Order: sequence, then C-alpha cells, then structure tokens
Amino acid sequence: MNYQTLKVDLADRSYPIFIGPDLITNSKLIQKYISGKKVLIVTNETVAPLYLDILKNSLEGLEIDQIILPDGEQFKTLDTVNSIFTHLLENKHSRKTTLIALGGGVIGDMTGFAAASYQRGVDFIQIPTTLLSQVDSSVGGKTGVNHKLGKNMIGAFKQPKAVFTDTNTLKTLPKKELAAGISEVVKYGLIIDYLFFEWLEKNIEGIYELDEKTIQYAIKQSCLVKADVVNQDELEAGVRALLNLGHTFGHAIETALGYGKYLHGEAVAIGTVMASYLSVLEGKISYADHIRIIELFERVDLPVLAPESMTADDFIEKMSVDKKVLDGKLRLVLFEKMGEAIISDSFDQEKLIQTLNTKNFRNFS
Amino acid sequence: MNYQTLKVDLADRSYPIFIGPDLITNSKLIQKYISGKKVLIVTNETVAPLYLDILKNSLEGLEIDQIILPDGEQFKTLDTVNSIFTHLLENKHSRKTTLIALGGGVIGDMTGFAAASYQRGVDFIQIPTTLLSQVDSSVGGKTGVNHKLGKNMIGAFKQPKAVFTDTNTLKTLPKKELAAGISEVVKYGLIIDYLFFEWLEKNIEGIYELDEKTIQYAIKQSCLVKADVVNQDELEAGVRALLNLGHTFGHAIETALGYGKYLHGEAVAIGTVMASYLSVLEGKISYADHIRIIELFERVDLPVLAPESMTADDFIEKMSVDKKVLDGKLRLVLFEKMGEAIISDSFDQEKLIQTLNTKNFRNFS
Repeated sequence: MNYQTLKVDLADRSYPIFIGPDLITNSKLIQKYISGKKVLIVTNETVAPLYLDILKNSLEGLEIDQIILPDGEQFKTLDTVNSIFTHLLENKHSRKTTLIALGGGVIGDMTGFAAASYQRGVDFIQIPTTLLSQVDSSVGGKTGVNHKLGKNMIGAFKQPKAVFTDTNTLKTLPKKELAAGISEVVKYGLIIDYLFFEWLEKNIEGIYELDEKTIQYAIKQSCLVKADVVNQDELEAGVRALLNLGHTFGHAIETALGYGKYLHGEAVAIGTVMASYLSVLEGKISYADHIRIIELFERVDLPVLAPESMTADDFIEKMSVDKKVLDGKLRLVLFEKMGEAIISDSFDQEKLIQTLNTKNFRNFS
Repeated sequence: MNYQTLKVDLADRSYPIFIGPDLITNSKLIQKYISGKKVLIVTNETVAPLYLDILKNSLEGLEIDQIILPDGEQFKTLDTVNSIFTHLLENKHSRKTTLIALGGGVIGDMTGFAAASYQRGVDFIQIPTTLLSQVDSSVGGKTGVNHKLGKNMIGAFKQPKAVFTDTNTLKTLPKKELAAGISEVVKYGLIIDYLFFEWLEKNIEGIYELDEKTIQYAIKQSCLVKADVVNQDELEAGVRALLNLGHTFGHAIETALGYGKYLHGEAVAIGTVMASYLSVLEGKISYADHIRIIELFERVDLPVLAPESMTADDFIEKMSVDKKVLDGKLRLVLFEKMGEAIISDSFDQEKLIQTLNTKNFRNFS
C-alpha cells in the first residue's frame, strides 16, 4: 500500500481521501465506494484520452456510462450542468447512480453540483487530476458553476463518497497548471500554518519537479489544513472565509479579464500578493515578509503583478458582487501576521485604493 | 391570535408553519423570520396583482426587491431559475438575503431551489397561496424544477425559515385548483390516516366551500401527516415514498399530455384511482372501498378517468424515467388496506397492464 489515507470528518458525511500513485487503476478500492450498479463518468476532452480508459477498466462489472465535456472554466455553466442532467435522463440513471468526476476543479465542481441536484441528490466520487483540485476541491464540499455576472455564484454543498488523488496524473499536467496549484498550497501555509510555509520555502522546487514524497506531503498537509478549517465551520459562516485569501482580488481579475485569461491559481497568487501588500500598508506584516511571499511565487513562475489594463474602479466594481461582500460592506482576508490571516472590514479605504492602483507590489510609495 | 402554529422538527433545521387568515398582513410575525436587511419576493403574474402590494407593506423597513415570473408549470425550468439568479446578481444580493416565495407550488419549488443554490444557500420563506402548496410544498423541503425529459428531476432539499399559510388566499383561488389541492389532502388520509379519510368523507364539501374552521383543520392535519412521514425519513430512502401515492401514474399522465393539460393534483387524483384499481386487482382492498375513493374525488369535481389518448405503452415509457424506478425495477405505491399504503415492486405485471389499459376504473372485467 503505497498511498496515504486521510479521513475528512464532517458529522454524518465523513469520507476518505486517498493520496498516492496508481489509484485510478486500483479497481478494488474504487468499487468499494460505489453502492449501485451504474455509474456516469464525467470528464473532459483533455483528460479523457489520458485516463478514461484506465478508469473504465477499474470499473469493470458495473454499467459504465460517460460524458465528455469541453475543457475550460468558460464551460463551467448551468448550461453544461444541464447537459449532464439530459445525459442522465436519456440514459435512465436512477437515484442509485454514482457520478464520478474525472478531471480538474471545473469537472469536480460541475459533477458535484450535478450530483447534488440530480433527483435532489445522488452519490459522487472525485478523481481530481490537477494539483489545484487535489488540494482545494477535494475538501469542503463546495460545488457549483459560474454565472455571467460572477464566479461560483450558483452551487451546493455536497460531500463526495471518496476522493482518489492519483499523483501519477500530475505527470501529464502542464507546468503552468502545476504552479497554479502550488499557489493554493502556499495559501494554506500563509493563513494558518507558518511551519508549513517555512517547509514550502525549503521544498517548493520538489513539488514543482514532482518528487513523490514531497508532493504527497504537500497534498496531505494542504488537505489537513483545509479539513481543519472546514471542520470548524462547515457552512462558511466564519473562519472558513480565510480560505478565500487572495480570492476577492483574484476573482475580480478573472471576471474583468474574462475566465481563461489567467488560471484560477494564478489570479489567486496575484490576489494574495495584493492582500499581503495591503497588510504591509496596514502595518501587520513586514516588507521583508511580503517579499518572501512574492519570491516564493516567483520560484514556481507564478504571476505577481496586477494586470496593466485594470483600474482601481475595475477592481471595485467586480469585487462588490463577490460573495465576500456582506450587506454591502467589503470584507477582505488580510494578514494579522505571517502565517495568520483574519477577515477584516476595518482596513483603511485609502490604503485599499493605493493597493488597487499598484501594479508592481515591490513598490511602496 | 386567530392562527394556528405547527412546528416542523427536522434536527437543526426546524421551522414553524402558521395557518390562518390575515397572515400576509402580519408584518411583525413575518419580519421575525428575516435576518438580513434585504429580501427578494419571487411571485408570478397571477398572484402579484392580488397579494404583492400587501406583502410589501408588511415588509416595510427592509430593502424590498421583486421578480414577477410567468405563471404555469411549463415555466418551472432551470432557465427560469437562472433568471432569478441573474436578478439577484444584478441587484447585488449577498448571502444574507432572504428569498420569499409568494405563490403556489411552482413558485415555491423554484424559489426554494434558487435559495438552495444561490451562493450555495440563502434563507427563504414560503407564503403558499394555493391549497396544494399549503398542504404539500410547505413540508418536506423538496424544491426543484422540471426537465424536458421528466418532472422534478433537478432540485435540492431545502427547508424554509418559516411558512405563512394565509387561508384568505384560497378565496381568490379557482375552484379547479382548490379541488387539485383537495386531491393531495385525500392522499394523506389514504396512505396512513384512515380516521382522517373518514373525516374527509364527512367534511369534504366544507373544504370546497372554504369554511374557515374546516379548512384550517384539513391543512393542519395534512401538514401533520406529511411532517410525521418526513420526520421518519428526511431524505426519502423509504417511508417518504408513500407520499408518492398516485404520483408515478400521475407524472406519466402529465408528461405524456404535456405540463399544463391537467393540474398536478388532478393527475394525482387519476393516478390514485389507478393505484386503488390495481390494489383491488391484487386483492388488497375491496371494490366498495375503491368506489369510496372515486366518489370522494367526484364530489369535488376531480377527474377519475384515464386520458383517452394514452396507451399502456405510453404509461410504461413515461413511468420508467420516473424517480420511483430504482435500478430498472418499477416500484409503485399501492394499498395494503384502506388507510395504509405500501411501496411494492412485487405486484403482478399483467394486473399492472390491465390497469394501464383501463379508462373507466369502475369497470373490472
């Protein structure tokens, strides 16, 4: 047994996350988590040629159905989810069916929402094939789709029956997407686990180069931090919002430039640097610590500059429909100190504007 | 206080149902169940001219937003729910908003699903204005929309914060719709509460003529029966399926003839008579009891004949995508005896075919 197991405990909806190589081919383990006789694999055009057939081999004995969606965040829509419903109905899937998400976060989010909503809820299993989805989407049960007026505005909380994080899949992942995933890994260190941040400063190249031991530790530690936060706050009333470090700025960037221009993790890296910048202005962290964050991102080729085309007004407009706005008051995840984030609505408005007007966050004037 | 209160206890999601006249104008009571500063009233073209303004009066002090949808089951679609999302986003509703469903079951189902899915869940309140929605949709948390391939195939379980059943609204309800609601009231007696069925045999005209005391009792008793069943089985694994008495046949009729030809409760009345007919063939209830059911429906002008145009094959085709089919095996709600329904997949197939070929269910050959 060369994989690790992490149990996510959420009251009556606990489930295991398996982390290691060769999980997609582990037929016996996967089938343990399928209670009916029929499954629908939901995947996309990029992942299907790589892993669909080997997954189908592992599902031998079951009635296997599949739907291959176009690849990309721009297809994470209610229309695409509706095409899953149509497929399920045309192929007479009952309430006993299991949906299997084979792909990255977009596939996981849509499959989870489809599973939450089809006949008001069927089982689902996640096989995340990107680092981002392995460290982010596999814990917490957030599913959903984008709306033309905002990201992730429609969805459900839905826990999977099990998550199979096959680290082999990272070998076929473009470096750019690997980096985008590392951006979220760094986030976990920054918000709540300073020792993990220090470990990342020593080991980030090991993740980027897919050293098996390093990558397993990074994924497991990320899932542990996220599970810890989610456990404290399953429905996101409070502390869970810390996971949105960099996301309010990041979402504004994604919305303004159109989905697909920056990868989600790339936009979050820029957003995290912006939150860090504002935290320096607020006197919460030092300039030196701020530069540590920028340099860690740069070591894995993540963007750390604000888009040239975006004005402060662009940011404000896009941020105000973000979910992090409560009753009209902008709340941001900022640093209290290194390795400890807080949710704040009491930052100085002029310092926020200064941040929104900055392009290179090494510069303070 | 001329209203009655019924508390629906569902673990951490309990809520009250208020039943009586003049509830829409009871500003103080309604506002007790709104925690944010902003609301969106979701209603339709038929109900809006009658009750929208008086509801808005009761919401004075809050930021009131409204969306008026077209009226009819044919608009109970994902597209219509998406128009609610668009409205919410355009008007910058946050997670703290409350959606208020003002209308019948279609409005309640769509508003509930929108509330379940908008930003992965916001509060909602139900003000059901039809008898059907007062006795059916207000307990159990089932929300959702139709798909062109089947009714209620997409949705969520979502409990309201409170239900305000204003019996005054029944005065503006067409008699045909009142009867459709009575069809569901009769169902509660039939599946589990024989004494209530006997009470209905004595009092059904009192409901049809809107005697306040009679109507309050009928609504309350219906909600109690439903709450009892739902409490035993919140996620519909077992006993809750009894509530689908007449629904598998009824849904097939609605799907085959197109939504809107028969009211839901009318189709359920026919479906209930079909279930009763098959139960006679199976030797579970007597011919005389079967005729009691037909005659009770006839006293409030409900249809009791199968549609001339539908063949047995039409029924079978439409029933096989119904949610009540588990792994390819048709399950029906049938009678074990009068006042006691069971879920069965062991009925005689030929007797089912005979039922599906029958038009007038007084005839046994």
